[in-house]
This record gives sequence, C-alpha cells and structure tokens, in this order.
Amino acid sequence: MRQLTIRYPNGQIYHQGSSNLCKNHKPKNDQVVFGNRGMPLEDEINLSNLFYLQNDLAVIHKKPIPIQIVQVDYPKRSAAVIKEAYFKQASTTDYNGVYHGYYLDFEAKETQSQTSFPLNNFHDHQIKHLRACTKQGGICFTIIKFVSTQELFLLPAKILYNYWDQQSTGRKSIPKNVIAENGFTIKYGFQPLIPYLEKVDLLIKQSPEKRS
Amino acid sequence: MRQLTIRYPNGQIYHQGSSNLCKNHKPKNDQVVFGNRGMPLEDEINLSNLFYLQNDLAVIHKKPIPIQIVQVDYPKRSAAVIKEAYFKQASTTDYNGVYHGYYLDFEAKETQSQTSFPLNNFHDHQIKHLRACTKQGGICFTIIKFVSTQELFLLPAKILYNYWDQQSTGRKSIPKNVIAENGFTIKYGFQPLIPYLEKVDLLIKQSPEKRS
Repeated sequence: MRQLTIRYPNGQIYHQGSSNLCKNHKPKNDQVVFGNRGMPLEDEINLSNLFYLQNDLAVIHKKPIPIQIVQVDYPKRSAAVIKEAYFKQASTTDYNGVYHGYYLDFEAKETQSQTSFPLNNFHDHQIKHLRACTKQGGICFTIIKFVSTQELFLLPAKILYNYWDQQSTGRKSIPKNVIAENGFTIKYGFQPLIPYLEKVDLLIKQSPEKRS
Repeated sequence: MRQLTIRYPNGQIYHQGSSNLCKNHKPKNDQVVFGNRGMPLEDEINLSNLFYLQNDLAVIHKKPIPIQIVQVDYPKRSAAVIKEAYFKQASTTDYNGVYHGYYLDFEAKETQSQTSFPLNNFHDHQIKHLRACTKQGGICFTIIKFVSTQELFLLPAKILYNYWDQQSTGRKSIPKNVIAENGFTIKYGFQPLIPYLEKVDLLIKQSPEKRS
C-alpha cells in the first residue's frame, strides 16, 4: 500500500500513522518515547493513552474517522478493498474513555496562534456533544497545544462554553492567559509523554458529583 | 452515490444505513418508531440511543468502523473521494458513552442460534477491552438478540468473562437459560425501541463502586 499525504475536506492533514503507530510501535515500560516534539498532538495523545492503557491506568481511545462507504470490491484471496467512500462529519469529539469510574470526553487541538486559541477550531456539534456529556456527569475538557512554544494546557469545557456562547457579541478566541489561569498547564513528560490524567484528577475535584 | 450491499471481510453485512438513519430520520417525541422488528439490532440500538440523546437521558454513540485509508482524490469543487482503503480490526467494542455519571461500554450481537449464544461472536481484543473498562469502573455488558424469537437480553460482562475463560476446557457458547437467569430480559418498547437503560440501572446496583 502506498502512503500518501491525505487531507480532510477542510485541508487539514490526516495523520494516517496514529493508529498504526499504536499497533506496531508499542512502547514497553523500559522504552523511551520522550522527545518526539515534532509529532502531531494527536500522535502524542495516542502514545500517552497507550501508556495509560498498558499500565491499567485508564482506557481512552481515539474514535475512528467516520466514513461513508459507497463501493467495496471483494477480490479473491485478498482483503476487501474500499473503492469509493467519503468523509463524514463526526457527531462527537475525538477521544473518550473511562478513568477511575469517570467518563472522560475531550478534543485535542493544536494552534499556530501565539496569543490565543481561535474558537473556529471547534464545530458547533462538538460543543453540543461536550455539553450533553457534561450534563450526564462526564468529565469534559480540551487539550490545547500552542505549537510555536510547545505549551500544553488542559482547559475545562466550562471555560470553552463561556467563550463559545459569547462569540456573537464578543471575541472569537480564548486568550492564552485565560487558558493558563483557568486551565491546567501540562508539562511534557517521560512516560506518558503527555501526563494529562494528573490534571484530570484536579478537574474531577472541581466537578460536582452527578451520580444518581 | 450508489448504495450496494457491503460486507465485512468476514462476510457479515455492513449496515450502511445506521448513521444516515440517525441523521436524516430523527424521530421526534410524537413519532412512532415502534414495530421495526425486521431491523438489524445495530439500527435498533442506534434509534434507541438517539431517543436517549434527544431526551437528555444518556450520551451513547456507536463508534465508526476503523478504516485504513491509502488513496484520496481531491476533485475540484467537490468532496474528497477515498479511492482505496481497507477495513481494520477495531481495538474496542462498538458502543460507549456516559449515563448518570457512569461510563457504559458494550457490544450488541445478534444470533440465529435458538438455544445458546456462540462465543465466536466475540474477538479476543473485545473481551480484553471490556475487561480493561470493567477494571476502571466502567459498566460493561452485551446486548444479545435471539433473532428467531426476537428475544433481547442484557448480559453483564462478568458472565461473558466466565464462559470466555472456560472455552478451552468447556463449551463454546453460553446457554440461553444462563443468559436469561444471569442477565436481564429487555422487552421491545415504544420510545425507546430498546429500553436497555432500565436494565443498566439494575446492573449498576449490582456493581461495586470504583471511584477513588
């Protein structure tokens, strides 16, 4: 199979490698997965989730990209080949899973901006999904990476909701200082590469209990 | 776009309609979605999940089918077309989500068998995934449909684990009477079509609390 640069309809590059990487490049406890600073955030999160999974710390997966399949060939003695398919808009966020009995739901977003996080990184349906999960007692957030400075933050979804709702009358981005003050700074680690569950622990402490 | 009968590599029919159905055929509260007894279980569950979502009762989605994309065309002025792609094995179950603060994770399986549920309906990685989720305090189960009698059961994952582990020395299926005695019978309903969350409530009562 040839490997090409594949783009979403919006032009964003599709990182084919992510899930292959999970399958073929499982870091064991004694392997170094540190220093991949040029990696897309998605791959960094996937590696971190693999570490969490292998160490029984959490079960969090990236959802596959939704595809509308139109035509499939079934060649004899070889795998079925999808010959025509289209990208569909996802109705949820990219990541969800379970951690210490809590449902986690989040998006991971990179920005080239140096001073703020543009809200057009989100679609309306993603915010709607996060809100529905929050309402059900899920722990919802965004992991934001400022690429130019390699800074990482975990931003609680409620801050995102506030800015999202004020878009029509207010600004169209969340200032970095607001993210830093209201979110949690994540430092790149060793194992996992992005130790975001430490910050999820803090977020859980802030969240009201929703079990009935 | 043409609609063809699409099959998984194992020959099972891929129900293209499921997610379209969710998008284009949203039942409102006053619409009847009852009586679709010939529907695949997947579509029945998807409709039920849509009802739960629209009524703020739970947020549960079917995961997209994982696809390995090899070639994509970008025609001018029209949507990107995937020209070559392959089915990948999923590393998780089909359904997960959040309900009253609980993480739910399950598979939905149909069987033509009249007396037992064959364990070869499951892959090892799905059992492994369910076990990992159970360990993290998730509520894990299977919804089993006996097609010939249209009977539905919610089977707690722990029963599945027991039979799975005894496969090498014991039987390769779970007898229907074991499912009926250890699981919960689900009666087809009106709205939702499959009111499985009522049985999840009972399962939660049986499950030890895992939050830390």
